[in-house]
Amino acid sequence: MAHIGAGVEYALHCLLYLVSPRDGAGPSARDLAEFQGVSPSYLAKLFTKLEKAGLVRAQEGVRGGFRLARPAEQISFLDVVDAVEGRKPLFECREIRRDCILYKGAQPSWDTIGVCSIHAGMLAAERAMRAELAARTLAEIAAGVSKKIPARGQRATSDWFAERAQKRRRGKRTSRNTGTDR
Amino acid sequence: MAHIGAGVEYALHCLLYLVSPRDGAGPSARDLAEFQGVSPSYLAKLFTKLEKAGLVRAQEGVRGGFRLARPAEQISFLDVVDAVEGRKPLFECREIRRDCILYKGAQPSWDTIGVCSIHAGMLAAERAMRAELAARTLAEIAAGVSKKIPARGQRATSDWFAERAQKRRRGKRTSRNTGTDR
Repeated sequence: MAHIGAGVEYALHCLLYLVSPRDGAGPSARDLAEFQGVSPSYLAKLFTKLEKAGLVRAQEGVRGGFRLARPAEQISFLDVVDAVEGRKPLFECREIRRDCILYKGAQPSWDTIGVCSIHAGMLAAERAMRAELAARTLAEIAAGVSKKIPARGQRATSDWFAERAQKRRRGKRTSRNTGTDR
Repeated sequence: MAHIGAGVEYALHCLLYLVSPRDGAGPSARDLAEFQGVSPSYLAKLFTKLEKAGLVRAQEGVRGGFRLARPAEQISFLDVVDAVEGRKPLFECREIRRDCILYKGAQPSWDTIGVCSIHAGMLAAERAMRAELAARTLAEIAAGVSKKIPARGQRATSDWFAERAQKRRRGKRTSRNTGTDR
């Protein structure tokens, strides 16, 4: 299994659709699930994590969608990775020196001073990886995507989500007690 | 589970004991297992991978140990990680855009040009991590370890492995047909 899983990929794709919502009406997790052909409960769980990490906020009302909790320029890949995966270490040092036959269960003090040099090397690699992830923001990706996708494609996407948001709002007016479809 | 597992930690520790073998007699996987308090079959599997990756070579004779296949200055952390874990990607892009509802199963050509910008960001993070792992060698770690461990501790380790190598040699002279203990 890769260190950074599919959850991060879905989270980043979802967040991209939240960067510039039309009329300020953000998509719901259910909209995003249908649009991307993925299970709504899967995305609902992802959004719980993103909300907990302070990256998104639910819009008011049971039929409201989500919006970014801060500007896209201030949301990095690293924020999303940590929100979805937790602060998962690249390497977990098991301190295998402890079991050395010469120590007979009592590790000498000089062997526990500072970080094991193998662990230190792994931590340096992790820092380099995290620095690179921290340097990329959602805003940069959104800018790249909007250059790549033809205007027609962008409009089709925007139309689809706007229609959904309207439907949700209409639903709210007509049936107040049918629960959330967020 | 961490991206870089315990196998890499054991492999690096084992390789350190191969850097400067006394009298050129490298330890066997069985010696290393006993010394580190870990299962011999586990280390035997690790050594199969290290040998396949060209990092170690079995010394001649059924009772021979292992030695480094090239100088410790030319064995990086990255070599060991790739040998043990395989070339495991940090992130596996699942191309989730393919399932977009607007495409109706036919992804437009403009959407498949080049690497997805999310994937590109992850690849950059992976490159940064790998560059850091490639910059650290077994020789550097060995030098650090020999500064940290008191002479007495180093001698005790060296004595233990030398005694084992002697035992293996004696075993070879007296009973040629008892198979390998490598």
